[in-house]
Amino acid sequence: MIPDMQTLKVIYDTDPGVDDAMALLLLARHKRVDLIGVTTVFGNADIATTTRNALYLKQKLGFSAPVAQGAGAPLVGEPDAPPTFVHGLNGLGDIDLPPISVSADPRPAHQLIIDLVTATPGEVTIIAVGRMTNLERAMREAPEIVGLVKQIVVMGGAFGRNGHTGNVTPVAEANIWGDPDAADIVFGAAWPIAIAGLDVTQATVMSETYVAKLAADAGEDGAFVRAISAFYQNFHRESAGLDGFYVHDSSAVALALHPEFYQTETGAIRVVTEGIAIGQTIIKPDGRNYPPGAWDGRPSQTIAVGVDAVAVLKFYRETLVG
Amino acid sequence: MIPDMQTLKVIYDTDPGVDDAMALLLLARHKRVDLIGVTTVFGNADIATTTRNALYLKQKLGFSAPVAQGAGAPLVGEPDAPPTFVHGLNGLGDIDLPPISVSADPRPAHQLIIDLVTATPGEVTIIAVGRMTNLERAMREAPEIVGLVKQIVVMGGAFGRNGHTGNVTPVAEANIWGDPDAADIVFGAAWPIAIAGLDVTQATVMSETYVAKLAADAGEDGAFVRAISAFYQNFHRESAGLDGFYVHDSSAVALALHPEFYQTETGAIRVVTEGIAIGQTIIKPDGRNYPPGAWDGRPSQTIAVGVDAVAVLKFYRETLVG
Repeated sequence: MIPDMQTLKVIYDTDPGVDDAMALLLLARHKRVDLIGVTTVFGNADIATTTRNALYLKQKLGFSAPVAQGAGAPLVGEPDAPPTFVHGLNGLGDIDLPPISVSADPRPAHQLIIDLVTATPGEVTIIAVGRMTNLERAMREAPEIVGLVKQIVVMGGAFGRNGHTGNVTPVAEANIWGDPDAADIVFGAAWPIAIAGLDVTQATVMSETYVAKLAADAGEDGAFVRAISAFYQNFHRESAGLDGFYVHDSSAVALALHPEFYQTETGAIRVVTEGIAIGQTIIKPDGRNYPPGAWDGRPSQTIAVGVDAVAVLKFYRETLVG
Repeated sequence: MIPDMQTLKVIYDTDPGVDDAMALLLLARHKRVDLIGVTTVFGNADIATTTRNALYLKQKLGFSAPVAQGAGAPLVGEPDAPPTFVHGLNGLGDIDLPPISVSADPRPAHQLIIDLVTATPGEVTIIAVGRMTNLERAMREAPEIVGLVKQIVVMGGAFGRNGHTGNVTPVAEANIWGDPDAADIVFGAAWPIAIAGLDVTQATVMSETYVAKLAADAGEDGAFVRAISAFYQNFHRESAGLDGFYVHDSSAVALALHPEFYQTETGAIRVVTEGIAIGQTIIKPDGRNYPPGAWDGRPSQTIAVGVDAVAVLKFYRETLVG
């Protein structure tokens, strides 16, 4: 078995969310992914809603991984109002949801993460596409997991590459802005982290044509993508004049499975936790020298700074169409 | 007389500083510049040293404009230790300085600015290449000058364009970092400001060959540039592996006299005044939408995001060689 054909054990930490659901579909259908757990966090909707949505997705997509409910508020302060103008009132583009007959794992999200990581040391990849709150809690309660995780792949932040800076403020991206304190702690721990920020996710756009073709060719999954993304696409059209929508959370899946689609840089990362730049992710690129400062002594992490968007879109389509 | 042949009345607010001195030489020699005042501020050296240097430059270069001493400390807190590793112990690359027989204007810098701006309303361009402390003081004491200045052209900040982010921290440039509170106030006032940040100044490099040729062709001025820049060039070689040095302060002069050398963007600007991103300049580009936030209600200012570096270097040379 050659390395890139290996199966990836994945915990998916998520706040569904339209693009979260699309990325979960990708994980559920990909042959090289062994989805071992889904953990929820507040963000695109409140925690009750994102958990309900994750359970709906388990039922709808038919995966067996447990779904565990996580944090409902950031490490410091209160959660902000959910962006219902992006993901709809129900967090899934306001599609009709059926009664849900599956139930959540009794453990809280951070405990499920600890249990799964500890069970197969060095094998688990965590794909985290919401606030970093559950990960901070897990590493706080069981610091040993920092050395046991294979990799954490994050959708979040913005490093100013390719003109992409922020979507909540001129410098902050929503996932990190929603719990900057947790993110600063998680990015400062010595587990290997790779981040797909707006730098690459806003460079990857699913057009209306792409979605229509997927709906035609990918059976029930394609129809599902079209249904949940209509509201989301409308938001992108109205706010950014975009024919289509940004591929945020699925970019983290692509980065985990196909790092060769991305150009990357490495360096110590800090998150701004106060003031007007709150939520900004700042990298001190390796090899660049500055006077002693706030980045010193932090581990070198990886950020995606460029993307082969055509390859990412092809990867998403081929995973669903087969 | 066509507009771009008009003479520009200039107040030069400066902390000499090697590149400050090179830009002052440019102002003193340029036929379209009427240098009406030089004001000093702490930064590249302490205020006594930068004022002494400005007086030395008045004597050496032979201009008649008054030199007035300004602020010795930022609006909040104490000044940081001067970067003697960049500009030398005497702030001018440690060249030998002769006795100085000219003296400073009795007025403080902010008063000279107020007097000169008020004397010819709408005609004065302020080229500010140090901390924004004197400008903040001037607008605080005489708010009416905000409406009377023709333009302020600043060397300072970094907006992350072209990979240029910061030189003191990963996001902060020294001039703005040295008094972020003053800069945030100055950039928020309704006078027209154009900023040459690291985005363009680090894209403009005077090579050793360029300086050698200038020394050969520009007489005493060329020899002077070579003498004061040797220490500075050495710093750039050792810290950044650069064959040459960045053209910081002269870029503000170029932007004032030849805006056509630059690509620009406009937007509201804030400066971070606390936390790890302190000193960062952040623009909210006009036309980009965000939820209500800290940039709202601020005037639209101009930043340089691209530069024809060859044209800037030619402009500097031709001004000195004639």
